[in-house]
Amino acid sequence: MTVHVLNPAPGEYSQTFGGVAPRLTVQPGDLVEVHTEDCFGGRITSPDQIPSRDVPASALDAVSGPIAVDDAEPGDLLAVHIVSIRPSRPYAISVALPGFGALAVTAETAMLHEPLEERVWFWDLDLDAWTGTFHARNGFTAELPLDPMYGTIGVAPASGEVRLVVVPSTHGGNMDSPELRAGTTLYLPVNVPGAMLSLGDGHARQGEGELIGSGLESAMDGVLAVDVVKGAGTDWPRYENDDYLMSTGSVRPLDDAFRVASKDMVGWVHDLTGMDVMDSYQLVSQAMLAPLANMVDPNFTFVVKMPKTALGQAGQAAYGGAHAKLAALGREYLASK
Amino acid sequence: MTVHVLNPAPGEYSQTFGGVAPRLTVQPGDLVEVHTEDCFGGRITSPDQIPSRDVPASALDAVSGPIAVDDAEPGDLLAVHIVSIRPSRPYAISVALPGFGALAVTAETAMLHEPLEERVWFWDLDLDAWTGTFHARNGFTAELPLDPMYGTIGVAPASGEVRLVVVPSTHGGNMDSPELRAGTTLYLPVNVPGAMLSLGDGHARQGEGELIGSGLESAMDGVLAVDVVKGAGTDWPRYENDDYLMSTGSVRPLDDAFRVASKDMVGWVHDLTGMDVMDSYQLVSQAMLAPLANMVDPNFTFVVKMPKTALGQAGQAAYGGAHAKLAALGREYLASK
Amino acid sequence: MTVHVLNPAPGEYSQTFGGVAPRLTVQPGDLVEVHTEDCFGGRITSPDQIPSRDVPASALDAVSGPIAVDDAEPGDLLAVHIVSIRPSRPYAISVALPGFGALAVTAETAMLHEPLEERVWFWDLDLDAWTGTFHARNGFTAELPLDPMYGTIGVAPASGEVRLVVVPSTHGGNMDSPELRAGTTLYLPVNVPGAMLSLGDGHARQGEGELIGSGLESAMDGVLAVDVVKGAGTDWPRYENDDYLMSTGSVRPLDDAFRVASKDMVGWVHDLTGMDVMDSYQLVSQAMLAPLANMVDPNFTFVVKMPKTALGQAGQAAYGGAHAKLAALGREYLASK
Amino acid sequence: MTVHVLNPAPGEYSQTFGGVAPRLTVQPGDLVEVHTEDCFGGRITSPDQIPSRDVPASALDAVSGPIAVDDAEPGDLLAVHIVSIRPSRPYAISVALPGFGALAVTAETAMLHEPLEERVWFWDLDLDAWTGTFHARNGFTAELPLDPMYGTIGVAPASGEVRLVVVPSTHGGNMDSPELRAGTTLYLPVNVPGAMLSLGDGHARQGEGELIGSGLESAMDGVLAVDVVKGAGTDWPRYENDDYLMSTGSVRPLDDAFRVASKDMVGWVHDLTGMDVMDSYQLVSQAMLAPLANMVDPNFTFVVKMPKTALGQAGQAAYGGAHAKLAALGREYLASK
Repeated sequence: MTVHVLNPAPGEYSQTFGGVAPRLTVQPGDLVEVHTEDCFGGRITSPDQIPSRDVPASALDAVSGPIAVDDAEPGDLLAVHIVSIRPSRPYAISVALPGFGALAVTAETAMLHEPLEERVWFWDLDLDAWTGTFHARNGFTAELPLDPMYGTIGVAPASGEVRLVVVPSTHGGNMDSPELRAGTTLYLPVNVPGAMLSLGDGHARQGEGELIGSGLESAMDGVLAVDVVKGAGTDWPRYENDDYLMSTGSVRPLDDAFRVASKDMVGWVHDLTGMDVMDSYQLVSQAMLAPLANMVDPNFTFVVKMPKTALGQAGQAAYGGAHAKLAALGREYLASK
Repeated sequence: MTVHVLNPAPGEYSQTFGGVAPRLTVQPGDLVEVHTEDCFGGRITSPDQIPSRDVPASALDAVSGPIAVDDAEPGDLLAVHIVSIRPSRPYAISVALPGFGALAVTAETAMLHEPLEERVWFWDLDLDAWTGTFHARNGFTAELPLDPMYGTIGVAPASGEVRLVVVPSTHGGNMDSPELRAGTTLYLPVNVPGAMLSLGDGHARQGEGELIGSGLESAMDGVLAVDVVKGAGTDWPRYENDDYLMSTGSVRPLDDAFRVASKDMVGWVHDLTGMDVMDSYQLVSQAMLAPLANMVDPNFTFVVKMPKTALGQAGQAAYGGAHAKLAALGREYLASK
Repeated sequence: MTVHVLNPAPGEYSQTFGGVAPRLTVQPGDLVEVHTEDCFGGRITSPDQIPSRDVPASALDAVSGPIAVDDAEPGDLLAVHIVSIRPSRPYAISVALPGFGALAVTAETAMLHEPLEERVWFWDLDLDAWTGTFHARNGFTAELPLDPMYGTIGVAPASGEVRLVVVPSTHGGNMDSPELRAGTTLYLPVNVPGAMLSLGDGHARQGEGELIGSGLESAMDGVLAVDVVKGAGTDWPRYENDDYLMSTGSVRPLDDAFRVASKDMVGWVHDLTGMDVMDSYQLVSQAMLAPLANMVDPNFTFVVKMPKTALGQAGQAAYGGAHAKLAALGREYLASK
Repeated sequence: MTVHVLNPAPGEYSQTFGGVAPRLTVQPGDLVEVHTEDCFGGRITSPDQIPSRDVPASALDAVSGPIAVDDAEPGDLLAVHIVSIRPSRPYAISVALPGFGALAVTAETAMLHEPLEERVWFWDLDLDAWTGTFHARNGFTAELPLDPMYGTIGVAPASGEVRLVVVPSTHGGNMDSPELRAGTTLYLPVNVPGAMLSLGDGHARQGEGELIGSGLESAMDGVLAVDVVKGAGTDWPRYENDDYLMSTGSVRPLDDAFRVASKDMVGWVHDLTGMDVMDSYQLVSQAMLAPLANMVDPNFTFVVKMPKTALGQAGQAAYGGAHAKLAALGREYLASK
């Protein structure tokens, strides 16, 4: 078990997927302990700050990486298992940014209204009790369980494209799905030699849909296990955990994001079970869950979840059992600590 | 406890919300044992049948009702608690109908492709084990837990409109949400005297999104408890169960259905907690679930779920505790059987 | 040439398509001189008024009619030629209504912003020069040519539905297309005996898209010529003038409205020319115009225009030359005045 | 008057906006005679070819350029006037590509249908009569006027992004608007020093909407005049010709593309006339045209056109009269030939 460390110094974070030289090179089967900054680059330390003034747009959502994975070639699949993810600080920050959020006018859903109020919330994190506490202006408080996740994780895009970290698309990126928690394996297409994996934008928790445009933004200390499945490919990022196979689509509008994710799942079930497409369509339709990931990023992300129990043996067979293999590696790592 | 029975004879089902005389009149606080037909009006009894040929479009989704509720006046709220819902037959039917389904060309998402294959599936229901079994053409089988729900439930629309039962909108209707299971209370606006409640289109289970355009379609024997909250009103149907407050929106495209449901939830939390709108927006954003209900009906339906635990006392206070009151009534009824 | 007059008294306007008894019965080939009120029911007579306060929602867009056309049976086509349309008053009114307009938050595109300012504009109409003059608060003025049109025109819906006049759909309704000017023939499906034609919501002019949600709203004196094409049917309203065949679609979102209208045109060209579907798709694609009608009503309306010159003889053959026949009738009427 | 020539050899075309070194450097006020290949890189020379087999995806839509413009700095505006554009060959090619087109299943609007038939059409171009002739399989022919345009024209994106040429966005790109004909001036934001202008994908004509996903694809010989407006900026590409100011938006879905373009026009009129925003909203709403450009590219493009006559003097004042200046330069060039 080889364990690498990626702990970027200020200035060593990346602003794009694609177009960046690797900051670490690993082998398939290796683990990486990785530190990620919050989406503000750590520049918001007080609720009196104004993110739109104090954080340059170019610094938003900067990611740790890229990590080059040896032997990953275009046409292969990169499997990334999230072994653990834990907030680095006893607070998390959430914001309402002008021109951002599902219930606000944005650059794309352009209207003549003035922007909503910009506001910053500091949530108290109790890393023992594993809760976050919210304080409203009228004295109301609420405590929610933590459920840490990576908002942004992806590889270099195909065809030489370079995309801002804020964009989710076929290469992954800012998918902002709560499913990207510890225990999930993410499958990504390899578009360039080494795949060039980057990640960041951790949320101590986030509601489905990321309505306000931010979660409980938090620097994270996490551990990944990576592997390469030769020749497997995938059109869109897929996820797997112990209970579910998950397809995703990141495109506007939501109608199309849902179509992409659910069509992918029908195809995946068809491939795994050998049922014809119409039978696969039927079974997926009756068994699936469809939680919205986000409707706030430049593309919107839907996740479609298929319970493995509905697929029998076939439910364990995705990519030659890559998830089970990496999950075992993760457990081995955690046991060694 | 007054218990009514609504068991329509053939020809006594309704095709529209609005424009139909009441078939039963009840008082607030009464219960109704209601039989609903499946969405095919019971006309599909063999997998060799062809629904598009054997079931007239006008017979699809016919509903039981309307039930007039005394004292329900425009501006009031109708509360409908689903005490129980149980498939009436040991099978359920699912279909792929030409021109219907989220992954198929429809009348609205019009393209030049030929329709997908029309196919009928009979699922075996085991009402003791509470499972449904799927049989694919290649011999693959799958067993899923039952989770019965009403696909269609609503009242007469406002402003004298009359809508086909297949349409979900502000009056409820064909919302096709798995949340409309036993234990859920549905809140609907009262638009005409008596509210005129109708329901049907039961599904023995349905995946989120209702991808293929039908669930496990099944005649149902169910029990409702109804109440009226004077002067409460609501713009869109809301649901409540023991754990969640739920807002809905039924409009095309999904982006807007999600906006409607989540804005409604922000307003609901604002009303219940007294937090200002931005604080409510923040808390809802971090706590909410966002399961798609359907993307296949003439309007698409999103449900946004807020855990009551995040709201403390306020989480129990919706409509003066109408849900708790009706749930208790339901338990009393069930205990009496 | 039989000429009828429909000049409703206050209280004789209709609020819905469907569910209303005929106020006039005519024969195919007859003409009707019809007076329509502006969309405010004539209740706004001063810029100091506040439409959202002074005009009840139920009074908005009330229409003249319905006109029953003898011999029109379900499955037939109703052809309605606009012989003339002329503002009844030397001014027109335009408004920005809260919760309405393409650049404003609406009930469906729901957000947390406060509504935009409500404002009323009186445009001066010069019915000799055929111009309208706009006055801005800063003294800027602009003069635009008049181009009167009916915003709302349609028939009773199918399947017993009753729709508010503000809704455009397969039955026509509030399509708000500038193409509905004098010289255009509108083809509508006949869903009920007599078709039940109603119209109103005249605009002295309107930009494509009806961005702000209203045109130059004006009572109108117009003349229609009506005919019935037996057995012709149509899924969606179509238009024809001397130069163009036009297909429409009224559905949300715009993507789907455009798909509906353009697929209909491909099918229409296929039917008229006998070309296969792919060749029809190609020719329509290269020749067509695609002006947005409106993106502000409960459904959005796109119009797709095919120049008749691209279709040779076939361009004159729609519905057996119904447009040419009615246009000739209209010229005869005008010459007789 | 300095006139440059850009006539790329095979291999000298570019596949992206951004990330490419300049192939020509010019001064503000210079002209460029530019040859562009058709969207197939000239590889389709017979209707028997199969584009999806014979043209690699990476070769589609390759552009001529980039052209660096001296003195263009981030924050400036690049003005590009199309002096002339003329097909280089006596034929043009149009195709139906699998997975492309507004009435076909695509990667984003994903469904379970098989792709539509792939078909290639050769249109005969008569460059004297200025017509194109279409031949259908059933013998039907049609002749349409030519109206040459550039489908793709843009600059390097902001923030270091690199985008495929097939994508339209804030940097311009594959906007596929028929308005990009001779006589139009295009305004683009300058995101990098030199702006890095590229163009190609000429269409001998194209219907509004580009329904089938291609126009009359043609290599072109064209002439551009370029200028820089210091400090002017623009969020989205704008166009101007002698009669209209035009705003554009390229985003999915169409609803949002229309919002972007029309909000931009309201702001532009506000800036030019000094009217307040609501008055600008009103005037634009009543005067504007709204032709769809395309609904087939990775983003969809709407164009909103404001007649200059509605704006009086202000209608001539955009960017200090940049259009008039470049148009005069163009006329001078043409007179010199």
